[in-house]
Amino acid sequence: MYGYAGRILRVNLSTGVITTEPTPENVMRDFLGGRGLGAYLLWTEVPRGADPLGPENKLFISPGPLSGLLFPGAGKMDFTCKSPLTGGYAGASMGGMLTAEIRYAGYDSIILEGISPKPVYLFIDDDTVELRDASDYWGMGSFALERRLKDELGEEFQIATIGPAGENLVKYACINHDFGRQAGRGGVGTVMGVKKVKAIAVRGSRSIPIADVDEFVRVAKEAYRACKTADMLEEWTRYGTMMVTSWCDENGTLPTRNFQSGSFELGPNIYAPVFREKIVVTDKGCFGCPSPCGKYSYSRKHAIYVEGPEYETNGMLGSDLGLGDIEDIAKANQLCDELGLDSISTGGCIAWAMECYEKGLLNQEQTGGLDLRFGNAEAVFVLIERIARREGWLGNLLAEGVKHAAAVVGQGSEKWAIHVKGMEQSAYATHDATSMLLAYMTADVGAHHNRAWAITYDIAVGRSRVTPEKAAKVIELQHIRPLMDVLGCCRLQWVELGMSLEYYAPALKALTGIDRSWEDLLHISERIWNLTRMYWVREVEGFGRNWDAPPPRFVEEPAVGGVTDGKFTPPEAAQQMLSYYYEQRGWDENGIPTRETLERLGLAELVGVSPR
Amino acid sequence: MYGYAGRILRVNLSTGVITTEPTPENVMRDFLGGRGLGAYLLWTEVPRGADPLGPENKLFISPGPLSGLLFPGAGKMDFTCKSPLTGGYAGASMGGMLTAEIRYAGYDSIILEGISPKPVYLFIDDDTVELRDASDYWGMGSFALERRLKDELGEEFQIATIGPAGENLVKYACINHDFGRQAGRGGVGTVMGVKKVKAIAVRGSRSIPIADVDEFVRVAKEAYRACKTADMLEEWTRYGTMMVTSWCDENGTLPTRNFQSGSFELGPNIYAPVFREKIVVTDKGCFGCPSPCGKYSYSRKHAIYVEGPEYETNGMLGSDLGLGDIEDIAKANQLCDELGLDSISTGGCIAWAMECYEKGLLNQEQTGGLDLRFGNAEAVFVLIERIARREGWLGNLLAEGVKHAAAVVGQGSEKWAIHVKGMEQSAYATHDATSMLLAYMTADVGAHHNRAWAITYDIAVGRSRVTPEKAAKVIELQHIRPLMDVLGCCRLQWVELGMSLEYYAPALKALTGIDRSWEDLLHISERIWNLTRMYWVREVEGFGRNWDAPPPRFVEEPAVGGVTDGKFTPPEAAQQMLSYYYEQRGWDENGIPTRETLERLGLAELVGVSPR
Repeated sequence: MYGYAGRILRVNLSTGVITTEPTPENVMRDFLGGRGLGAYLLWTEVPRGADPLGPENKLFISPGPLSGLLFPGAGKMDFTCKSPLTGGYAGASMGGMLTAEIRYAGYDSIILEGISPKPVYLFIDDDTVELRDASDYWGMGSFALERRLKDELGEEFQIATIGPAGENLVKYACINHDFGRQAGRGGVGTVMGVKKVKAIAVRGSRSIPIADVDEFVRVAKEAYRACKTADMLEEWTRYGTMMVTSWCDENGTLPTRNFQSGSFELGPNIYAPVFREKIVVTDKGCFGCPSPCGKYSYSRKHAIYVEGPEYETNGMLGSDLGLGDIEDIAKANQLCDELGLDSISTGGCIAWAMECYEKGLLNQEQTGGLDLRFGNAEAVFVLIERIARREGWLGNLLAEGVKHAAAVVGQGSEKWAIHVKGMEQSAYATHDATSMLLAYMTADVGAHHNRAWAITYDIAVGRSRVTPEKAAKVIELQHIRPLMDVLGCCRLQWVELGMSLEYYAPALKALTGIDRSWEDLLHISERIWNLTRMYWVREVEGFGRNWDAPPPRFVEEPAVGGVTDGKFTPPEAAQQMLSYYYEQRGWDENGIPTRETLERLGLAELVGVSPR
Repeated sequence: MYGYAGRILRVNLSTGVITTEPTPENVMRDFLGGRGLGAYLLWTEVPRGADPLGPENKLFISPGPLSGLLFPGAGKMDFTCKSPLTGGYAGASMGGMLTAEIRYAGYDSIILEGISPKPVYLFIDDDTVELRDASDYWGMGSFALERRLKDELGEEFQIATIGPAGENLVKYACINHDFGRQAGRGGVGTVMGVKKVKAIAVRGSRSIPIADVDEFVRVAKEAYRACKTADMLEEWTRYGTMMVTSWCDENGTLPTRNFQSGSFELGPNIYAPVFREKIVVTDKGCFGCPSPCGKYSYSRKHAIYVEGPEYETNGMLGSDLGLGDIEDIAKANQLCDELGLDSISTGGCIAWAMECYEKGLLNQEQTGGLDLRFGNAEAVFVLIERIARREGWLGNLLAEGVKHAAAVVGQGSEKWAIHVKGMEQSAYATHDATSMLLAYMTADVGAHHNRAWAITYDIAVGRSRVTPEKAAKVIELQHIRPLMDVLGCCRLQWVELGMSLEYYAPALKALTGIDRSWEDLLHISERIWNLTRMYWVREVEGFGRNWDAPPPRFVEEPAVGGVTDGKFTPPEAAQQMLSYYYEQRGWDENGIPTRETLERLGLAELVGVSPR
């Protein structure tokens, strides 16, 4: 009675064999569920050296222990697989309603394995699990299909889909849900595509067993009350993550023209108030959310509806491409969603190509006739379509990700391929923000912000400073924030509303009946972090310090304009931050967890470290 | 679209892992389902040399393709495993309502594998499959538990249970269902017991896909009409299989006092009309039956209800034990059912023990104080209880089966251990009936009658005759009758009402859309017969002609009394029948299928015969 339904659903797409199996109790004890369970399953089930696009790779779809319960933000879930984009660990979280239905259907994780011989969708109605023919849906846009499946199955089914990008194995295809929620990063949609799973439809009707219902309700009510009385609630709910745009612009961290700058001269046109007044139609929240950040928008200019843009998309498809009209960004966002592309990686790839074009490394023959200057919205729209469909030389090239594209084009373009470990950096310019740069260098999936959003800390304590305290902050955040993904919760109640972290441990205890402190939970989070680190070590030949290298731009090239004008982080400063980080983590100078660290975390046996 | 739901449900009791997998189409094509599917799965899934009471043995629970459809007698199903009684193949059929529910739940077969760490029952509600704690039910009688589970789950759930005999691993424990239907022979209940599965509860709500519904209905209606207008319908429905008792007695084939005689001086007291008038309360049929043979009875003398006795029980717990009061037989029957004992093997074991007692090989110390003379009903009741509970030296000994018991007691008692291959012979005395004797010698599970009920043929053509035609008749019956178990149908509409065999192939064709003649189906039946023969060859060291030896009594000792007084079958006559049989089957002189035969039947690859 861990407060889990205690079952894993295994769907072998090659054979059609469908299995339910009890989730091992020790795994739930040591990895809690959600992303932790995904990481454990990835380690134990996907064989070393598996081709990310081959039948050996698997997709692990895991709600967390709190998700689906009435607790603030408990509407998140995790997708884990070996990344087709990076060749290493991929774990992508997604909000919406799907996680609750999976829990109500009684599954701790859904494992997709093998490759279907034909397009299918996975139908789950509690215990009824079927692979249904999806030949008629192949080629459809994400939300067109979501609408159609809801019409066919019933509104209460929650649907996740892939778009044409996933079908065409674009390396950063996403998974879409709830008409605007994505598991975006690392190519989780690509893996769904190669498996020929066009969609997942889930309805559940079971109760989630709770060890102490009264106590759980008490804790949850308190947590909700804290959220609902938070000072920031009104502003946050009005603008969502878009609130950050102006702050980033002012602080020189808004990615602009492929991160050449941290501030955008057209920035004010894409700030939150303009966004809200010009295109937002209504607010939209995930399951259990007291502070809905989702904004459903309509662009008159393009006659399209879209959920968003939220900040990351605003940065990566807006300022980073030189686009200064919120309606153009909304359109680019809508294209990415419907086609099933990660808007962050898409923006990063196009920004790199625009810089190549402006610097004469790509001509119009190579761009397929596109005038790829920064700011050319029409060219962006066309290029997004081409990437999703792998059309033309450039579309097909960018579909492989910026690291690969730069390796092909060469001529120094690697210098402005803004990625870590092959994953395009998300929307914080890190010329002069040593914590945030370190966060990108060390994030478990590549250059993604959500493992440690340290940028405000940089601004607070001194952005250029190189101190052990900054490395410690990054590590602290890398334990707290991913822990939310483990629990199946959204971090934004804590980040934006200031909801106390002290609610989580009591809630989990009331749920499971197991007394664990917040520190115990952080210890588990550290265990998971080290396991995914070891996954990189296991899968990537020669993995080490070099893989944590920052994008050259931030350590070699001065930023242009804004408050960070002329600033960059000296390479030795970045390396010093990394050394602080390794030392505090208990990793060696090459960034490999030591035997002592693995033993301290109870991972030695799992990862196969021989006893002393 | 073979008219099958096309799924196998796999329940691993050791791990709790529950799997559904598509039934391979080629397997359904070559083995049709039901007992054919069971035989295929036994061959392919249970490793050579598996301990019947170990975790490697499996129980395959298979409805047939016609079962659950409105077709005469389509209420049968098959249980297959490696037999704990014989060490070879076991396939036991059962009537009632369960088979229909399993089909409506959409399963071609349910595989129980491994061993549960604690008592459980298997709950199946369409796709919802759960192993539920059955600790509270352990020790309960079969029908007490069936009543309780129906009260708890709902009347529409169909339940199969084991009694204490199955829990205590009596080697011939049966599986009980519908308050009086059994899968009786070979220890299928023992295998359920060792796996700690106390019961199975199934409810289904799916449709069975039919390729040509109109045609199926047409064929089924014609078949029903033929049954309902049959001359024998009234008499058959009045008496059921008990009708046979007087005929057997008159023809010297009623097993009497451990088969020492074929006629019983108290016979008329246990004939059908006495039965009907004295104790029958109502008729009771299986799913889809036009001619219900089940009789629900009440004994005032013992104040018990029981379904039965039917003929086999009447013979084996009645005349064969010297019991001449139908109410005593009903009570013995009721004890076997509630305790979960195969009444045929139970009767055979007790009859052997009674003969030992009368001949001075067992004394009252060994019988635990029982005066085990033939005809002592009270002693029989006590001994049945002791066998089921393995109480006392004799109870525990008889729980191992008559072959084992005779090997322990020795002193010539092997001569009157009436079994073939370790399975106690059912209720036809075969002193002078060469076809029926051959049928017992060669039946795929041991000395069971239902594979070839050749006794009427013996009477018709000359009971002592030794001819190739008689062997041919046995083979013909061994293909027709087991084919019914493959299809999930009862044979009694054909045997008793004379319903034409010509309805089956068109019904199966309308169901599956595949055009196969009756001869095609018999060819499949022959394939299955040879596969189970090869299973004996594979599993039993030194298997061959000696394993088809008749019980010594019928070839060495003259019968006493009745029309067969002084008669027995000369050993060389039995061997000559066997030689005819082997030759016609395409088996060598040792009874092993030749390579040519296996190739003709398309079995060479499956059983691992190397190509020429």
